[in-house]
Amino acid sequence: MNNQQWLMIERPNGMVSEQHFTLTETKTPLLREGEVLIKTLMLSFDPAMRGWMDDKPSYLPPVAINEPMRASGIGQVVESNDDALPVGTLVQGILGWQEYSIAGPNSLFPPSALPSGTPPNIALSVLGATSLTAYFGLLKIGDPQPGETVLISGAAGATGSAAAQIAKLKGARVIGIAGGKDKCDWLLGTGIDAVIDYKSENIRARLSETCPDGIHVFFDNVGGDTLEAAIEHAADFARFVLCGSISNYNDDSPKPGPNNMFSLIAKRIRMQGFIMFDYMAEVDSAMADLVQWLTEGKLLWREDIKEGFDNIPKTFIRLFEGKNQGKQLLKLADPN
Amino acid sequence: MNNQQWLMIERPNGMVSEQHFTLTETKTPLLREGEVLIKTLMLSFDPAMRGWMDDKPSYLPPVAINEPMRASGIGQVVESNDDALPVGTLVQGILGWQEYSIAGPNSLFPPSALPSGTPPNIALSVLGATSLTAYFGLLKIGDPQPGETVLISGAAGATGSAAAQIAKLKGARVIGIAGGKDKCDWLLGTGIDAVIDYKSENIRARLSETCPDGIHVFFDNVGGDTLEAAIEHAADFARFVLCGSISNYNDDSPKPGPNNMFSLIAKRIRMQGFIMFDYMAEVDSAMADLVQWLTEGKLLWREDIKEGFDNIPKTFIRLFEGKNQGKQLLKLADPN
Repeated sequence: MNNQQWLMIERPNGMVSEQHFTLTETKTPLLREGEVLIKTLMLSFDPAMRGWMDDKPSYLPPVAINEPMRASGIGQVVESNDDALPVGTLVQGILGWQEYSIAGPNSLFPPSALPSGTPPNIALSVLGATSLTAYFGLLKIGDPQPGETVLISGAAGATGSAAAQIAKLKGARVIGIAGGKDKCDWLLGTGIDAVIDYKSENIRARLSETCPDGIHVFFDNVGGDTLEAAIEHAADFARFVLCGSISNYNDDSPKPGPNNMFSLIAKRIRMQGFIMFDYMAEVDSAMADLVQWLTEGKLLWREDIKEGFDNIPKTFIRLFEGKNQGKQLLKLADPN
Repeated sequence: MNNQQWLMIERPNGMVSEQHFTLTETKTPLLREGEVLIKTLMLSFDPAMRGWMDDKPSYLPPVAINEPMRASGIGQVVESNDDALPVGTLVQGILGWQEYSIAGPNSLFPPSALPSGTPPNIALSVLGATSLTAYFGLLKIGDPQPGETVLISGAAGATGSAAAQIAKLKGARVIGIAGGKDKCDWLLGTGIDAVIDYKSENIRARLSETCPDGIHVFFDNVGGDTLEAAIEHAADFARFVLCGSISNYNDDSPKPGPNNMFSLIAKRIRMQGFIMFDYMAEVDSAMADLVQWLTEGKLLWREDIKEGFDNIPKTFIRLFEGKNQGKQLLKLADPN
């Protein structure tokens, strides 16, 4: 089978661009015992993918030069050497920027976690890894209590908007930081208490206004100056959930961290990084909560769906230009 | 009663020096109901006192201009309007840089926590707040497990050396960072596994050598570049106990923080600040452990005892010059 792929041909030193990828075509190899051939239907785009392009030790090995860019997605089994995954099965996993991929046993997302018949876009957006990330980070690390003030950065994004709404469901006051009127308006419409538009407002002044008793839980997707400002406005015993640092992903050299780290001592702040994979054992119960909130209309989301294999790199780059309106997806094909 | 005092007359902008204090003499006021008059016998000097001189919100209000410098110490009751503290009682608390101080009910350290008859120097050093700080920070936040690697910065200091030895008692491999051959030799003599002399060695190279599996628990008294180096060498799921940041206390403007904060996410590091006061409810049981280890000869310490009221400011400044060899104290008088 002919297989188009977008390979990463060069590691970015700074901002990622289309020149770091090249389109190529190869043949799919023969399936071995226990493997399945998957046709990619829809790809997910996440800021964390930028980190996978750097040659640095992290929670996953770096993408290799001339390897298809790593990405999660939804696909459909089109050839199968695994009785548990017959032809036609919809699967979720790290499929990569390619039309076809091969997966062995246990390399796919547990299918049991998703309600059967979940459409690909839903499986990758409001019931996807970003919402699970929000769920685990907020509840396992942030642990907001009713009446506490929760601040979310990158709050109009897929992870941020889920975290913001889950915090509201748990009875917290929720303040979201996002960029631009459209994102902020949508975010307010989800029912959170206040928004800060970092593109047109002074974050520190607005934090003083919106968090008069300080920030009890900060769910951070942005890092950099936003993190420094949040430390400045943290309440004693605040919990900082470090989920992402999109402001730094395209830096060409390491940037200085917050200049107020001593406040972590004075205010007894707990700051903790995490990734969703750490909580895989609890995915089923988390998904049950997400599905219930979704069914009850308590969890709103936006999807930004592009199309076309040629458009994959530029769709990825939208994330770092802040252009995506909600979860960035790209559709390649419909299920058979 | 005539009462000599060292007042803070100016807030330092940068390094603290003798010019920020002035010696004065006043009269002790009349005692009110429930108050006692305390003669200062011995003063404790701690890096955290530098932070109390800055006009910044913290866990204690700043020392006011023209107020006696705040300091903890051991004193003896010489007049009493409190039946629970008769004349002659030895007490511990925030006495300040003055010959006499007045204390009301509940303003002193719980006397029950210390074995009766504990000499003032012992009460302020190995059985003092620094050891309790080490105990709570290491065990409540760091929670080292047998075989894990624990790194301590400022490890020859009163807090650091207690933390290092408690970590050894809990079965950890312990690496200490200190400045100068004398401090490092003494520290190795306490039985820890390795020392790094930051004055003559490259911290990062030595961390690679001494922590090949990464740092599981970092007990930080120093901050700054040491913190950045420790993040670089942290193991996944490391716990960072933020106790102090002596490298920054005399900065004249805020200095940038670690440039590798993203590693907190990639390595899922938990970083948490604390102060000893947060654990006051558990002082008795902590003290029981410290007394037992001390009695069994398992907890070594050094004291650096100066004398003379005139020498108070310059004794304090020794801390920031790294001149103190162990717990810095100053003796004013013997108990009656």
